Formats: sequence, C-alpha cells, structure tokens
Amino acid sequence: VSSGPVRALVDGVLAGEVTAIARAISVLEDGDPVAREVMKEIHPRASGGWIVGVTGPPGAGKSTLVDALTTSARAAGERVGILAVDPTSAFSGGAVLGDRIRMQRHTSDPDVFIRSMATRGNFGGLCRSASDAADVLVAGGFDRIIMETVGVGQDEVEVVRAADTVLVVLVPGLGDDIQAIKAGLLEIADVFVLNKADRDGVDRLEAEISTMLGLAEGEAARRRRPEILRTVATSAEGLEDLTAAIARHRADAEASGSAESRRRERSRWRLLDVVRERIVRWAAKEADGHGALDDAQEKVFRREMDPYEAAERILRAFAGMKRDGPGEEGRG
Amino acid sequence: VSSGPVRALVDGVLAGEVTAIARAISVLEDGDPVAREVMKEIHPRASGGWIVGVTGPPGAGKSTLVDALTTSARAAGERVGILAVDPTSAFSGGAVLGDRIRMQRHTSDPDVFIRSMATRGNFGGLCRSASDAADVLVAGGFDRIIMETVGVGQDEVEVVRAADTVLVVLVPGLGDDIQAIKAGLLEIADVFVLNKADRDGVDRLEAEISTMLGLAEGEAARRRRPEILRTVATSAEGLEDLTAAIARHRADAEASGSAESRRRERSRWRLLDVVRERIVRWAAKEADGHGALDDAQEKVFRREMDPYEAAERILRAFAGMKRDGPGEEGRG
Repeated sequence: VSSGPVRALVDGVLAGEVTAIARAISVLEDGDPVAREVMKEIHPRASGGWIVGVTGPPGAGKSTLVDALTTSARAAGERVGILAVDPTSAFSGGAVLGDRIRMQRHTSDPDVFIRSMATRGNFGGLCRSASDAADVLVAGGFDRIIMETVGVGQDEVEVVRAADTVLVVLVPGLGDDIQAIKAGLLEIADVFVLNKADRDGVDRLEAEISTMLGLAEGEAARRRRPEILRTVATSAEGLEDLTAAIARHRADAEASGSAESRRRERSRWRLLDVVRERIVRWAAKEADGHGALDDAQEKVFRREMDPYEAAERILRAFAGMKRDGPGEEGRG
Repeated sequence: VSSGPVRALVDGVLAGEVTAIARAISVLEDGDPVAREVMKEIHPRASGGWIVGVTGPPGAGKSTLVDALTTSARAAGERVGILAVDPTSAFSGGAVLGDRIRMQRHTSDPDVFIRSMATRGNFGGLCRSASDAADVLVAGGFDRIIMETVGVGQDEVEVVRAADTVLVVLVPGLGDDIQAIKAGLLEIADVFVLNKADRDGVDRLEAEISTMLGLAEGEAARRRRPEILRTVATSAEGLEDLTAAIARHRADAEASGSAESRRRERSRWRLLDVVRERIVRWAAKEADGHGALDDAQEKVFRREMDPYEAAERILRAFAGMKRDGPGEEGRG
C-alpha cells in the first residue's frame, strides 16, 4: 500500500501529467527513499513503448538529428520522450546543456517531454536510471522514447543497454581516434547514420564501415546486419528513410525474438545496477555511522591493507547487518 | 603465505621483469582467483610513483602527446609505464588499438612498458583495474606512470580518480558538443594542454577556458587554478614547458596536502570498486548455480517484480550466503 504523496505522484504520471513525470524521474534518479514505492507502481504499467538510442562521437550532429526525429514522430501523432544523457559536471551542478537549446522549438509542445540526465557516477547506474526514466515516460503515455548520449566509450555501451534500436551517428572527416570509436560503436549499432552526408568523404566512411562489418566476429557477426543511411539533419534530408529504417529494425527484432532477448538482458543489468547501488550506498552511510568504510579506506591509503582484503571486511560487515538489521537501505 | 607460482610472479614483478609485470596486470584485470594473493604482496610495495592522466576529446592528439612525454621522461632517466584505456570492443576482443602503433618507437626500450586496457564493463571497476596496474608498475620500478584515455564522459572521471596530475588535452576547432565536453573536463583538469596550437582558434580556445575557470564554483573553485599550456606534440613544441608544469603541479600538490587527500579519496573508490565487483560476480555465479539471479531477472523482464524488490531479494540471499558459506568469492 503506497502512502498518500506517492499515490498522488503515481496517479499524476499515469494521467500523463508532465510535472508528475518530471518529479517521478527526479525521485528515481536521486535514489530517494520513496523511489522503491514509486517503481513498484510504475514498473508493472510500463510495458510497450520503443526506445531509440542515439549515440556517436562529439560533433556528429546528434542533437540536430534527435530534433528532426522528434518532428517526424510528432507528425505521425506520437508522443515523444527525450532523455539526453550528459557527462557529469560539478560546474553546472548536473546536466551540462540543460534542456538542450537546439530543441527549444519543441518545448512548447505538451506531447514532447525533454529531460537531461547527468551521469553522476557516485552511485553508478546510468543504465538503471535511464531505464527507470523510460518506464515513467512509457507509463505516462510517451511511447516513443529517444535516448541521446554525448561522447564515446563505456557510457554509451551502458546507455545503449536501455535502448531497443540503437542509431550510431557518424560524420565524414573526424580524424585520429575515430577508428577506435568506430570499432567500439560497430557492435552496438542497429542502424548507422552518416550525418552531414553532403560533406566530402562520406563514400569512404561508408566503405570503411562496410569493411568493418564484413570483418565482424562473434556476437557482432550473429546480429542483424545494420543498415547504413545518409542524412543531413539540419535540412531533414534522409529523415523519412531513417524513420522507415527504425521501423524495419523494430519489425525484424520483434519477429526474430531479438527484441525480447535484448529486453531480458536489460532486466538483468538493471537489476545488477540496483544491487551495486544499494551496497555502495550502504557502505557510504556506514562511513558516517560506524566508520567501517572510513577505517578501511584509511588502511588502504596507508597501504596497511590491500583493497581486496578491505572489501572482504566490508562485505562481511554488510552480511552481519543484513542478518541483524532492518534489512532495507533507505529506511534505517 | 603465498603459494609458489604467486611468489614467483611477485618476485618477477619486484625484480622489474616485463613479462612478470604484464602477467600480473592480466591476473588483476581478469579478477583471477589469485588476484587477491598477488595484490596482497604488491600493494604494500607500491608506494611512490606519480601518475599522470591524459584525457580529452577524440582527435586532440593524446597519443602523440603521450609519446612525446615518454621521450622527455626517458631523456631524464625515468622508467615509464603507459596504461592506455580503450573503449570496449567485442570486435577486437578487447583493446582496440592494441599497443598503439604510434608508440612503436618505444617498444624496443626495456624501460618503457606499454599496456592497453579495455573497459569491459561487466564487472565494472576501471578505476580499480587501472590502480591495480599502476601498483604493479610502481612495484616493478616504473615510477612515472602515464594513463591515457580515449573519449569523454564518465569513464574519464573514473580513470582520472587514479591519477595524481590530470592533463586535459584540447584542440582548436572541434565543433558542436565541445562545450559540453569542456565543461565536463574543466573540473578534473590540473593542467590544460592546448595541442595543435599552430592552428587557428587557439587564442579563442584559451580565452574560453579562462572564462569558464573564472566562473567555477564549489569544489572546482577551491582547487588550484589549472595552468594552460600550448603544444604541438608532433614537433615536440612546448614539451619542456609541459614537463615543467607537471613538476610544478606535483610540488604544489605535495606541499598543500592535496596529493595526499586525492590518494586517500582514491583508496575509497578503489575499495568500493572491489566491493561492487565482488557482489556482482557473486550474483553472476549464483545465476549458474542456484538460479537466483536468473529467476529475479525473469520476473523483472515479465514485470512481475520491480528491479528494486528483485535487488533486495538478491542482497538477502547474499547475506545468507555470507553467514553460512565460506565467505570468499573465487574460492568456492
């Protein structure tokens, strides 16, 4: 039985109220003590929806593309929820770009919900918080979710675990580390979008990607071969094709069962993310109380104890607490 | 008391043998069951050393800069250990760029150790594995450590926790998302390196950084104001100044106690990384044995249970195991 304020919040979400949706996402993002109660109500009501992940290197024009995709989806009558994942910044106190200046033309549309999420790191779990936010949006009737991530690396792999169709956006003429990035992104792409396709070098870029896809081994080779499309997002060129390609990927993924197995895998990661968060939060709280973490940290710092032994002690303390204590983080 | 093979491995590391160092890093990276025994011996012997972290957006010329820094350090008689952190790739089976083609001129030098580390994600803990590898290198007599990371985002913040001096490398003329990147990197920089400084726009880039530094609040404002230097890494221009700036940062950080507090903080993160890894590994192993994780995952997937409730059940199972069982992952 949920308490009054949680009930009101959840009812607001289910009625599609934007302020309730925003508040519920914050509660879940912060790992607020009522997060569990909120998720208990939201999670069973968040079936359906389709999450499109948009990632790629800086400068690829991802935000402009998301903007154009939003315009297409709105024209088709869909309600669109956009989750933009920014790198952490203590400078800005959170999300760097706020609600994305370039998307301002959608901000007055009640059927477009835009939210920036910061990657805070301390309690980890970007996959978890992005999935929680997507659940809230789906429960609130925003069934087309777009997750955009700035940057490259492990972050993207993480966030992409929360998406049903992954667009990897590349542009011609990014030098140097781009080979590394392309290799890293190759295995997560469902559709390659060659943006700024009016630039020189787009043919070569496409040829490179095709070659790399031809060399794919292991898991990557077993997956559906990604389509490669060209766009000029600033003038919406190629956007119809892209929308059709996303629909084709969805249809194929649903027919082959790969959509289901990806969601099953996502459940696992989400769950493990929560497990990790809980134990780290417990240890951090313990540091204020009994000093178990502080003490272990100091011993590691002085090199009197190695990190593995210190970790073992903390886990033993945790097990003891679980046996004797109330057993729930956030209540005690 | 360590068993024979561990003893031999540790002795090899302490004697500075490159093959033993490489093997020990692998053992720690994989979370091999003998990792604990190895770290027990290595950790107390890994005092000293100075870790320089090099990060920045793709295309900034980080690898060339690391190469030039290595040449300088070698000229000063230092033994250099380089840890290059690449984005995960199942395609390449790990590190994308292998041992970095551009650094091949150092590969025949026995006093330069180069190692690529992949960000695997599954068991997390890049900060942990980078710190473990640095310990091995320091114990083996490589007292100048350079950690290079490709990309932007949370990864960098993580890796940078393992560094004593952080260089943020930027170049003029990277468009679009660069503002976000700069903001994210601003708070972790000890020294800004404006590379490719012969390009147009370097004055404007420096002015932007100065402005952003002037606006710094909170923790970032309390830190030593980062120096801003210009280099052309390909021709080693500005490298002497950069080496001197790193030395100044080190001297200041040691005098002010900030080096110590950063290392203390690092001990905490390292420890928490191990805690996280252990419990996730336990849950994954449990999945094969008793099916606790598989069962919970399936319930979450079917939306019969929310991830928070499922996590709570797993933690209870873990606490029960800790009480009754041998209590050590990797032994049972």
